[in-house]
Amino acid sequence: MNTFGQYFRVTTFGESHGTAVGAVIDGCPPGLELSAEDIQAELDLRKPGQSDLTTPRKESDRVEILSGVFEGKTLGTSIALIIFNRDMRPYDYSKIRELYRPGHADFTYQAKYGRRDYRGGGRSSGRETAARVAAGAVARKLLAAKGIQVVSFARMIGGIWLDESEPGIGDEPGMAGNPGEVAGLVADLRSRIYSSKVRCPHSDTAAAMERAIHTAGEEKDSVGGIVEVRAYGAPAGLGDPVFGKIDARIGQAVLSLGAVKGIEFGSGFRLAEMRGSEANDRFGVGAAGQVLP
Amino acid sequence: MNTFGQYFRVTTFGESHGTAVGAVIDGCPPGLELSAEDIQAELDLRKPGQSDLTTPRKESDRVEILSGVFEGKTLGTSIALIIFNRDMRPYDYSKIRELYRPGHADFTYQAKYGRRDYRGGGRSSGRETAARVAAGAVARKLLAAKGIQVVSFARMIGGIWLDESEPGIGDEPGMAGNPGEVAGLVADLRSRIYSSKVRCPHSDTAAAMERAIHTAGEEKDSVGGIVEVRAYGAPAGLGDPVFGKIDARIGQAVLSLGAVKGIEFGSGFRLAEMRGSEANDRFGVGAAGQVLP
Amino acid sequence: MNTFGQYFRVTTFGESHGTAVGAVIDGCPPGLELSAEDIQAELDLRKPGQSDLTTPRKESDRVEILSGVFEGKTLGTSIALIIFNRDMRPYDYSKIRELYRPGHADFTYQAKYGRRDYRGGGRSSGRETAARVAAGAVARKLLAAKGIQVVSFARMIGGIWLDESEPGIGDEPGMAGNPGEVAGLVADLRSRIYSSKVRCPHSDTAAAMERAIHTAGEEKDSVGGIVEVRAYGAPAGLGDPVFGKIDARIGQAVLSLGAVKGIEFGSGFRLAEMRGSEANDRFGVGAAGQVLP
Amino acid sequence: MNTFGQYFRVTTFGESHGTAVGAVIDGCPPGLELSAEDIQAELDLRKPGQSDLTTPRKESDRVEILSGVFEGKTLGTSIALIIFNRDMRPYDYSKIRELYRPGHADFTYQAKYGRRDYRGGGRSSGRETAARVAAGAVARKLLAAKGIQVVSFARMIGGIWLDESEPGIGDEPGMAGNPGEVAGLVADLRSRIYSSKVRCPHSDTAAAMERAIHTAGEEKDSVGGIVEVRAYGAPAGLGDPVFGKIDARIGQAVLSLGAVKGIEFGSGFRLAEMRGSEANDRFGVGAAGQVLP
Repeated sequence: MNTFGQYFRVTTFGESHGTAVGAVIDGCPPGLELSAEDIQAELDLRKPGQSDLTTPRKESDRVEILSGVFEGKTLGTSIALIIFNRDMRPYDYSKIRELYRPGHADFTYQAKYGRRDYRGGGRSSGRETAARVAAGAVARKLLAAKGIQVVSFARMIGGIWLDESEPGIGDEPGMAGNPGEVAGLVADLRSRIYSSKVRCPHSDTAAAMERAIHTAGEEKDSVGGIVEVRAYGAPAGLGDPVFGKIDARIGQAVLSLGAVKGIEFGSGFRLAEMRGSEANDRFGVGAAGQVLP
Repeated sequence: MNTFGQYFRVTTFGESHGTAVGAVIDGCPPGLELSAEDIQAELDLRKPGQSDLTTPRKESDRVEILSGVFEGKTLGTSIALIIFNRDMRPYDYSKIRELYRPGHADFTYQAKYGRRDYRGGGRSSGRETAARVAAGAVARKLLAAKGIQVVSFARMIGGIWLDESEPGIGDEPGMAGNPGEVAGLVADLRSRIYSSKVRCPHSDTAAAMERAIHTAGEEKDSVGGIVEVRAYGAPAGLGDPVFGKIDARIGQAVLSLGAVKGIEFGSGFRLAEMRGSEANDRFGVGAAGQVLP
Repeated sequence: MNTFGQYFRVTTFGESHGTAVGAVIDGCPPGLELSAEDIQAELDLRKPGQSDLTTPRKESDRVEILSGVFEGKTLGTSIALIIFNRDMRPYDYSKIRELYRPGHADFTYQAKYGRRDYRGGGRSSGRETAARVAAGAVARKLLAAKGIQVVSFARMIGGIWLDESEPGIGDEPGMAGNPGEVAGLVADLRSRIYSSKVRCPHSDTAAAMERAIHTAGEEKDSVGGIVEVRAYGAPAGLGDPVFGKIDARIGQAVLSLGAVKGIEFGSGFRLAEMRGSEANDRFGVGAAGQVLP
Repeated sequence: MNTFGQYFRVTTFGESHGTAVGAVIDGCPPGLELSAEDIQAELDLRKPGQSDLTTPRKESDRVEILSGVFEGKTLGTSIALIIFNRDMRPYDYSKIRELYRPGHADFTYQAKYGRRDYRGGGRSSGRETAARVAAGAVARKLLAAKGIQVVSFARMIGGIWLDESEPGIGDEPGMAGNPGEVAGLVADLRSRIYSSKVRCPHSDTAAAMERAIHTAGEEKDSVGGIVEVRAYGAPAGLGDPVFGKIDARIGQAVLSLGAVKGIEFGSGFRLAEMRGSEANDRFGVGAAGQVLP
């Protein structure tokens, strides 16, 4: 099942060491301004090998739009995005051919299909996410046009937590404001996030996270982490009952990423230890008498 | 989106105070022995009002099979299951008509659809899960025929945890054994689970959980909890890459339940604070040289 | 695959001699006025046994709405429709148990599933269409609210053709008019259609069709026919390229009916013998300069 | 809706004058031998510009497999096929920009999306079928491995019919034989079909069809035709009741092609004028007493 979504459907393809990875988007409305540069900007943020902290593998990805865009705007037809796999260094894979790496899907693919592309994970490689980032860049533009801003950052790495009290994290003044103001605040937050190697918007915390990664690395080990994703400007009533609840759909998408083993919404597992009186959202009443969630 | 699944597809319908709730199963193989009693047995375990701990609402549900079963076995055609809503006590809903209950989807449905069935939650009521239990009973029979056993229990209620060291929880001798032995052990575990009002297999822990519920209830409050679900006998390679990973599909299903705000697989969020060397599963080699995950 | 449709999805269930047949509609917008009577009216038109021309089998079907409608209007939730199978006369099916009727799907079901409900066709019975008629009645109301009117009639039965020159057939004055006028003309046409036993709006032609059926019946034989379906008021751009072209979707639906072995759109197979210059639609220009298809 | 199929799902993309057209196949089983040459062979048969009878447009298409194949066999992962649009002659499209060609979807796309790729049809161009042919070549290999052979030819062009009495058309000795024999007979039939410019296996009829095309062409006109598609070796029980009947699925696929306005199965519309006694298939009994459809 290489397709996700009901109205905006994304189909991905590609093995890590095959010819290309890519995505076909079906259901994107016509008239959205879209260029390869819009997508490239997101891919550049994803690119491994940007610092001494991640895999040394280089992926100098260039995305091409093959269809669905004409005279700078989407047509309403399927949008094919392709990223050729370049810079594949010659490598002797014969050693890995008969081995299953722990924590990887090598064994599972072999058990399921009777064969696998053993060169670096093939379809189960993290490289598959390049296609998601490309398709996600289109979704981001579409959402931004509706006043919805999505931002994500490292909340914890190697046991180092970004504290709720840091600016822009625990309290978000203006984040419930008008779309323009929200867009500005999110742009500012994203700028702080992406100026950090570990994608953490608070520089001291980011530095501590980096040290945790280095310390583990010196011991030939690695660390885990938690990513926080936020959406601003989302209207009430998104998602579709019953099986299409927005939590359910996001859950499916996020849990389909390799190495993700859990997801929480709102207070998440902390809710489980709360009393109902704490856990329930209260409703407020806006100035004009409008009920606010 | 009232349908879930790709091959075994379940479509549910029904509002809590409408005429009936039910499910249509599409894709169940032919030849499976199935009777209303098989399904009723699971519904009886779900039934609210069985103890002083849950909602006083009585649901004396009786399921009927309307189609898809002939001479005691499935036909391969769509299986319709229906549970009429009985015992609906006369009740004055005019008070709730203009109110949105916190922690419920009342507001969301109103915002999305412009109208809602305000009598007790309608489609967003927990009663919708009766249809899932009915369809799940068919899935359970199908899985059991393949040697797969699924069991669930309360791992935490109101801050009281079922300890890993309890028998049958942390170590499962025989659970990797032959299907017959596993079925027996699961039947035993289920029997301990369902002899407890709170569905916890360890009686002292169950008693503490009950006290936590009572204490909160005396303070007009409620508590949260964590359910653990286990599958025994599942073969390697279940699920479908990429977006159909088994974690992703289970995640969608579970997060589509009202009040569920998080899900973990395996070590879950604890993994995030582990080093890679701890987090990776190791592979063992079975007696016959077979690689075991 | 018991589900049809992408946005307005219909899932059907039921064997001819089981407990009930029915449909679940997913995706019907909220706020549509809907009652069981609306649906019953369409079922009454479908009912076999209304004349001496059809199967003597009686189906005094009563539809019930189980969900999705509240205070006379749809909720946006799934709409379950059920028709219990009544008046099932005691009948000895042992004779048919080991036989495959020609022109029926008995053999195919047995080959596919290894078993079948041999009592009168089971799932492959024409009775399955009662569920489609019920769901179609909801679709008809929804379309009418958008100014779209659908009408169908017998164009040929037993070699007797309804001529293009009959009033309301070949020329449709007013049929491109305003929605109210079109609704009136369609209502008039439907009234002529349904006052005929053979669903043909021209009484002399209808009488000849009836005679053809009787003549064949006296010879223990049956006749074939062609149904014409028309939609008025449909806007340009319906359907979804590529695989969702409206011809393709309608084709799938119609060809999924038992006994239907062909479908044509517009001039259909006659186009194949035309020159391109005849076959191409010409565009006209409306009074206000608007291009009309 | 650019995706077709339930288990073997094909998603296509591409405009006629964009960068590329292509397809992603999801659900192809692992272990199928597949090379670009297998697909190229089918594309070469499709290629316009091979004779003086078709559009002078040249499409020297080269297909590339981007993913899903490793060491000469499919992996079970999504298979991406791409055909870059080459040889696009410089052409002044400004004349066509404001015009809608009769018999084309230009108007429909404009009405639906508010914009369109006006250069030669864009997504609605017949060029979209190159992606279908490429995906179909994979399906053909998969079917052949199951002993199913599919063949198609011109049954009528410009009023000239290929007669039922021609060898290999009306009677197919050996076509119900063993898979090897059938494969040989189909290969022979295909060879006769593709040695004809008009894809008609009988040379005299083919010559008459060519003349009909030339005659119309001299009068600046074009002709219509009928394609016959046959499958040999298909087992009983293919397809999926109710909405997934094989007639219904094939109908959807074929009617989604531009310019196709009708489809028949078996005796098709001729059935409508037959008596039931003629129209019903009879069952025969094979040597071993096996019931044959």
